[in-house]
Amino acid sequence: MVNGATRIVAIIGTPIAQVKSPDNFNAHFERAGDNLVMIPVDMAPAGVAAFAETVRGWRNCDGFVITVPYKQAFADHMDILSERAAALGAVNVVRRHPDGVLRGDMVDGLGCLAAAHTHGFEPAGKRAFVVGTGGAGSAIAYALCEAGAKDLHLRDLDTERLDTLAAMLAERFPQTAVHKEMPEPDAVDFIMNATPLGMNKGDPLPLPAEFLERLPSTTLVGDVVTAPPLTPFLEAAKARGCEIQMGPEMAKGQMELLGQAMGVIAD
Amino acid sequence: MVNGATRIVAIIGTPIAQVKSPDNFNAHFERAGDNLVMIPVDMAPAGVAAFAETVRGWRNCDGFVITVPYKQAFADHMDILSERAAALGAVNVVRRHPDGVLRGDMVDGLGCLAAAHTHGFEPAGKRAFVVGTGGAGSAIAYALCEAGAKDLHLRDLDTERLDTLAAMLAERFPQTAVHKEMPEPDAVDFIMNATPLGMNKGDPLPLPAEFLERLPSTTLVGDVVTAPPLTPFLEAAKARGCEIQMGPEMAKGQMELLGQAMGVIAD
Repeated sequence: MVNGATRIVAIIGTPIAQVKSPDNFNAHFERAGDNLVMIPVDMAPAGVAAFAETVRGWRNCDGFVITVPYKQAFADHMDILSERAAALGAVNVVRRHPDGVLRGDMVDGLGCLAAAHTHGFEPAGKRAFVVGTGGAGSAIAYALCEAGAKDLHLRDLDTERLDTLAAMLAERFPQTAVHKEMPEPDAVDFIMNATPLGMNKGDPLPLPAEFLERLPSTTLVGDVVTAPPLTPFLEAAKARGCEIQMGPEMAKGQMELLGQAMGVIAD
Repeated sequence: MVNGATRIVAIIGTPIAQVKSPDNFNAHFERAGDNLVMIPVDMAPAGVAAFAETVRGWRNCDGFVITVPYKQAFADHMDILSERAAALGAVNVVRRHPDGVLRGDMVDGLGCLAAAHTHGFEPAGKRAFVVGTGGAGSAIAYALCEAGAKDLHLRDLDTERLDTLAAMLAERFPQTAVHKEMPEPDAVDFIMNATPLGMNKGDPLPLPAEFLERLPSTTLVGDVVTAPPLTPFLEAAKARGCEIQMGPEMAKGQMELLGQAMGVIAD
């Protein structure tokens, strides 16, 4: 039960009622016996700057998680940004230091790799393919480069966004060959759908069916879409005998990273 | 357990760990089966304006309670003030309307009278004496006038503060005779200590011992001090055979009023 001495972390976005983080964090805090609670904050766009300023002064708040649609907006309101958050221009977790300084980080990509790790995939020296270069896709692409992928293929219908990300990654990560072309289906170890395709009935597949039909069963295939957990894209991969990684695994893989970033879960 | 769909109310002040409102409200919400939580917000002075602005945009927040030392500061950040909050220049509860408009009210005085009601005291036509004209004292004095007291005696070492309050009340409530002199001990029905005297060991009594020794046992004597609940002032009154009203009763009497003001407890 929340009392006067309870410390607070928040998750902010809009809408917010559907997010699972408060359930997961609060169950964790209860198990750990911590007097801590994660609260949902459904914020109007005009309140983003005020919320950051509020947290600077909020002495019993340890930080907050940021979800759709504010990951980019909050990047402008941090006192310190991690290197990856600065490079991606996006923040999904903020730690409040005791002096009120706010440090933003972006661990969406790490959460994806933590989930891939449970399927036995380690990026170093491997070939990866990320479809979609929006917020989630760029974070995953960045994390793959950080972890030493040998080849990274990127695909996006928005070629400007694709070009910008590819150039940024190529400059920062010379050990990774960044490609703006589709790989051959048998020349890639890990494929992530980072587009929203699959959320709605009747969505086209994020990759051509002919491509999916030629995937070797050694490929790990993942999706960021959380509902439905088993997208038509993952179904097609499963039909090929591939190991699959569902959207909710990424959120689960990320909880510990988010808690550590806020300093409320031990490293 | 707090989840994504939980609605929020807050209590803001500094320090905050000692406040009992979250325990009381959260026990109430649990009993009522409401998916609502009261969170403590320990706020630095610089965050007061940003917090008000944040709540305007905070769609799943219904309002907040204000405690020491921010009751005056928040009065400058409301969109609407109740008549009594405007007159007192202080706010202890804020309701967030669905369009983000913040309405501030001040129900400290009503909480005191709700507690007095449980001791059988009804102010209409009665004679009251309030010692101390700071935040709590002015709110109680205002509520006594609103409720139709016939005579109101006020006492404060800060004569400027005393004069200002007495003039304001006299202008608004012509049916109440406002006095800046001590009453005779046997000419008053209700006495409230609204000074902090009694919180610390060795504090002088808020009224002369000679005065207390002459109180008739029909006088109801109350104190705003919550710790210790039984102050030396109340002990002296009890020794005279008077009915007493302890500080925590005022907080208890106020919970329903605060919840109603935020719209989270039914009228």
